[in-house]
Amino acid sequence: MPDNHSMHPHLPDVANDEPPFDIPLDKVGVKHILYPITVLDRHDRWQSTVARVNMYVDLPKNFRGTHMSRFIAILNRFRGRISFETIRQIVKATRAEFQALEAHLELRFPYFIEKRAPVSGEPSLMEYRAGFHAFARGDDFDIQLEVSVPVMSLCPCSKEISARGAHNQRSVVRMRIKTGNRLVWIEELVAIAEAAGSAPLYSLLKREDEKAVTEAAYDNPRFVEDIVRTVANALEADPRITGYRVECENFESIHNHSAYAAISKRLAEGL
Amino acid sequence: MPDNHSMHPHLPDVANDEPPFDIPLDKVGVKHILYPITVLDRHDRWQSTVARVNMYVDLPKNFRGTHMSRFIAILNRFRGRISFETIRQIVKATRAEFQALEAHLELRFPYFIEKRAPVSGEPSLMEYRAGFHAFARGDDFDIQLEVSVPVMSLCPCSKEISARGAHNQRSVVRMRIKTGNRLVWIEELVAIAEAAGSAPLYSLLKREDEKAVTEAAYDNPRFVEDIVRTVANALEADPRITGYRVECENFESIHNHSAYAAISKRLAEGL
Amino acid sequence: MPDNHSMHPHLPDVANDEPPFDIPLDKVGVKHILYPITVLDRHDRWQSTVARVNMYVDLPKNFRGTHMSRFIAILNRFRGRISFETIRQIVKATRAEFQALEAHLELRFPYFIEKRAPVSGEPSLMEYRAGFHAFARGDDFDIQLEVSVPVMSLCPCSKEISARGAHNQRSVVRMRIKTGNRLVWIEELVAIAEAAGSAPLYSLLKREDEKAVTEAAYDNPRFVEDIVRTVANALEADPRITGYRVECENFESIHNHSAYAAISKRLAEGL
Amino acid sequence: MPDNHSMHPHLPDVANDEPPFDIPLDKVGVKHILYPITVLDRHDRWQSTVARVNMYVDLPKNFRGTHMSRFIAILNRFRGRISFETIRQIVKATRAEFQALEAHLELRFPYFIEKRAPVSGEPSLMEYRAGFHAFARGDDFDIQLEVSVPVMSLCPCSKEISARGAHNQRSVVRMRIKTGNRLVWIEELVAIAEAAGSAPLYSLLKREDEKAVTEAAYDNPRFVEDIVRTVANALEADPRITGYRVECENFESIHNHSAYAAISKRLAEGL
Repeated sequence: MPDNHSMHPHLPDVANDEPPFDIPLDKVGVKHILYPITVLDRHDRWQSTVARVNMYVDLPKNFRGTHMSRFIAILNRFRGRISFETIRQIVKATRAEFQALEAHLELRFPYFIEKRAPVSGEPSLMEYRAGFHAFARGDDFDIQLEVSVPVMSLCPCSKEISARGAHNQRSVVRMRIKTGNRLVWIEELVAIAEAAGSAPLYSLLKREDEKAVTEAAYDNPRFVEDIVRTVANALEADPRITGYRVECENFESIHNHSAYAAISKRLAEGL
Repeated sequence: MPDNHSMHPHLPDVANDEPPFDIPLDKVGVKHILYPITVLDRHDRWQSTVARVNMYVDLPKNFRGTHMSRFIAILNRFRGRISFETIRQIVKATRAEFQALEAHLELRFPYFIEKRAPVSGEPSLMEYRAGFHAFARGDDFDIQLEVSVPVMSLCPCSKEISARGAHNQRSVVRMRIKTGNRLVWIEELVAIAEAAGSAPLYSLLKREDEKAVTEAAYDNPRFVEDIVRTVANALEADPRITGYRVECENFESIHNHSAYAAISKRLAEGL
Repeated sequence: MPDNHSMHPHLPDVANDEPPFDIPLDKVGVKHILYPITVLDRHDRWQSTVARVNMYVDLPKNFRGTHMSRFIAILNRFRGRISFETIRQIVKATRAEFQALEAHLELRFPYFIEKRAPVSGEPSLMEYRAGFHAFARGDDFDIQLEVSVPVMSLCPCSKEISARGAHNQRSVVRMRIKTGNRLVWIEELVAIAEAAGSAPLYSLLKREDEKAVTEAAYDNPRFVEDIVRTVANALEADPRITGYRVECENFESIHNHSAYAAISKRLAEGL
Repeated sequence: MPDNHSMHPHLPDVANDEPPFDIPLDKVGVKHILYPITVLDRHDRWQSTVARVNMYVDLPKNFRGTHMSRFIAILNRFRGRISFETIRQIVKATRAEFQALEAHLELRFPYFIEKRAPVSGEPSLMEYRAGFHAFARGDDFDIQLEVSVPVMSLCPCSKEISARGAHNQRSVVRMRIKTGNRLVWIEELVAIAEAAGSAPLYSLLKREDEKAVTEAAYDNPRFVEDIVRTVANALEADPRITGYRVECENFESIHNHSAYAAISKRLAEGL
C-alpha cells in the first residue's frame, strides 16, 4: 500500500477504513528489504556492506492499514549511513511520521575485519555477521547488537579418550547484547567469541600459520558448553552490558547434526 | 560427546570435569537432526513425513558437559511416532534421564492435507508447515503448536484506486498457540488461516476452479493487517487457546520486499 | 494455468493462442512441489520421505502455453510410489499426455539408512540426500541418480606439519551417475563415499565409538582432492556406471569458506 | 592447506605427494568466500556490494594437492575492484600462479539500481542479483554474465476466464549470457527482463504509482512462457550476445509451487 501523502489526494485511501476487528497490532511494516549501507567501524572508517532491513510500527485498533511506502522513504533519507546515532534518528523519525507509540528497526549484514595470520602476519579479510535491533516506545529507546562469530572447537572428550587426534569443527557463536545505549563495538564482541573457542578462524593461512592454529586448538579443547560459559562470563563482567543472550552451535565433524548450548540473562527474547 | 553409560567404563569422562565458569546454562543439546516421523492427523491416520528435531535440557553450574548421544537414544526409542501423548513422554523421559530441571523438544515438519478444488472437486495434496515445541519444568508441561499456511492476499488499496485489476500475491500466515495441553488439530489452524486470506491456495486447479479462485480473491481484498486481525479474532474466541502469536508476510507482487504484520498475546516469545 | 480437459469447455483457453514469438522452449512446467513419497530401498522396503519435485516438458514454437495442472494430476496418479520403474512410467505418461517430444522429472529427498556405531554396535538412523533426474526424448529414456553423503575429512597437511592434532571437519560428497538404466542403489553410492573420506559420520556414538572414529580419521588423512579421486576411481570401475560427476566440499574448521574439488566424466552437466 | 611459498620451507609439503589415484581433476579450489567488492556500473560509478566468490583451477593427475591459500592471496591483491578488465586479470593471474591449464572465477552479488516510480517520479533503490563466471583455458578467455530480475506476472488465462480480477505474482527472470568478451551492462539485461514481464517492481510506490502499476499489469498479461520467449527474442537480436540461457519462475499466487520455463541457446550449461 503506497503513501497517502500523494500528489493525487482524490485517490481513495482505504487504509483509513474501519478495520475488520478492533484489535491493535504489535508490528506492522516492511520486511526483507535489501539495502546497501555503510557502517562505522572501530577505526572510525565507514565500511560498505549490504543489509537486510525490517521496519515496523505498532498499529492502534482503530486504524485499518499502514502506509508501507513511508518506511522506504525514511530509509532512503538516511542514505544507508548506519551508526548508533543514525539508528536512533531513523527509529525516532519512524515513530514520529507514523504517529506510532512504538517503532522497530532491524538490520543484519556481513561485516569484515582485517586479520593477520598468527605466524606469518599475512593480512586478510575475515567475515562476520552483525545486526542492530533498535526499538523506541514513547521516549524510551533501546538498541541491541547482535554478532555471529565462526570459531574452531576441538572436543575435550574426543581428545581425552583417543590415543591420537581429536575431532574438531567450525562452530558459530552468536551473541546479542543490550547496553542501555552505551557503545559496544562489533570488534569487541568478535574478540570475546574468538577468545572463547579452541582457535579463531582466518581467511588466509600459510603453512606455518596452519601448524600454529592446529596445535593451539589441540592444546585448547572446548565443549560447546565451555564456549558459551566463557563468553557469558566476559559479557557479565562488562559494566556497559545490561543483558545478553549467547548461543553456540558446533557443526560436529563426527555427526550430521549440531551440538548446541545457550544462555540468556536479562534480555527479553522477543525484542 | 558420547554417552558415559558405556561398555567401556574405563574411558575417562571429561563431561564430569569442573566447568571453566560456574554458570548454569539454559539449553544444552542437539540441533538440526533430520528424522522420519509419523504424525497423527485429525482423521486418526498416521501421516509419514520428515522432521527437523532439536532437543535440549538445562545444565546446572557445576556440570561441565552433557552426554549428547542420549538425546538421540531417547528419540530412537520412540521410533518417530509423534502425537500429543508421545511428545509428552519424550520430554518427560529426557528430563528424567538427564536428571535435568527442564527439557525441550522442538519438531518442525511439512504436513499434507488432501483438499478438493472449489468447483471441479478435483482432489490433491496441499503442503503446510507444522511444528511442536514442548517444554517441561519440574512437573509442569507445556506444548505449543506452530502452523504456517500459505494463502492468497489481494490488496484492497490497489483494487480501490485502480480502474481494473488489483495486485495480489502469495502470503504466509504463521500461527503459534499455547493450549494448556488441550488438543488443537493442525487442520483447525489451517482452516482459520485459509478463511482469513483473500482465497486459499490449491495444488491442482482446473480452469473453472481458477476462475472461481480469481473472482473470490477479487471480491475479498485483504491487507496483511486484516489477515492477522482475522486470525487473532478466531484464536481469541477459542476457549482451548490460552496464548498465541500470529504473523503474516505478503511476498508483494509489486515490490521485492514483504509487507508484514504480527500480534502476540499471552505467549512468552522465547519459549 | 489450469487444465483444458475441463468440465467447462466453454471457458476460453488462451494457452492455445499464438505465442508472442515463435521460439520453442526447452522446459516448461512446475517447480518446487513438496510431495510425500515412498522410495524402494535396497532391502526391498518402502521408505517414507518427502520430496521436492520438478516436472517439465518441451514446448514447440507454435504453442503459447502449457496446462500446468496436468503435471500435478499425473503425479497424483502414482500416489508418490517412487522406484526406477515408476519413474519411467511417470516420465512416459508426462510425455504422452502433453504430446511432447521431451519430458523431465526431478526428485530430491532425504533418505535414511540404519547404521551401527563402529564399536558398540548401537543402531541409529543416518540422513543422506538423494535425487532422481529422469529424462525422456522420444523413445530414449535416461535416469540419473544423485546422492549427497556427509563424511569427516582430516587434513593431511595439517597432520604432517603439526606436532599434535590435525584440523578436521564435516565434508559433503555429492555424486551424480548415469547408468544406461541399470539399477544402482543409493546404499551403494553411500558406501563408496563413506569409504573415501577420513571417517564416516554417525547419528549416535558412545564414548568407545567416538574414540574409534577419532583415531580412524587421524590415521586416514584425506585432502578434498583425495576424496574426489577415490570416489571417481570407484565409479570408473563399476561397469553399470556410464558417466558421473563427483564433487566434494569441505566446510573447513580453520576457515569460514570451503575447500572444493570436482570431476565430471561422460555426463552432460545440464541434464 | 596453506601456501608453500612460506617463510618456513622446512615444513613438509604433502601437497606434492603422490595422489592416491592418477586421475586429473576438473576443478580444485575455494568456495563460498564472502568478500566486499566494488563493481563498475553503467554510469561509470563504483558500486559497493558484497559477493560470494568461488575460485578454481584444474589439477593434473600427478599432483596430490593445491595450495588453497593462494586463491585468497590473489583475490586480496585486487582489493575487490570488479570490472570486466579486472576479472580477466584475476583469472589470468590465477592460471599463471597455479601453472594450471584452466582457471575459473565465479562472483555473485546483489546489485542496486536507482529507479523512479512511474507517476510520482519518486526515486528509490531496486535490488537485483548479478554474477560473473569467468573462465580461462590456455589463452582462451570467456566471461558470462548472469542477472536475476524480479518482475510482476499477471496470468492471461486467469484474466480471460474471470469476470473480474486476475491472479498475479512476483516472478524471477534469470538470464545468463556469453558475449565473446564484448561488454554488456547489468543494466541492459535488467531492462530486457523488466520489459518482458507484466510490470516491473519498485521499492517505493505512492498511491498514484500503485494505480499505474496495477493497471499496466492488468493490461499486459504474460504467461511464464511469454516472458521467457520475449527475453530470448531480445537476446537473440543483440549481436554482442553469442549464447544465452533464460529461465523464469513464477511464485504462483494461487498455488504453493512455481510455474517455470527455460530456454538455452549456444551456451554450455556447465561452464
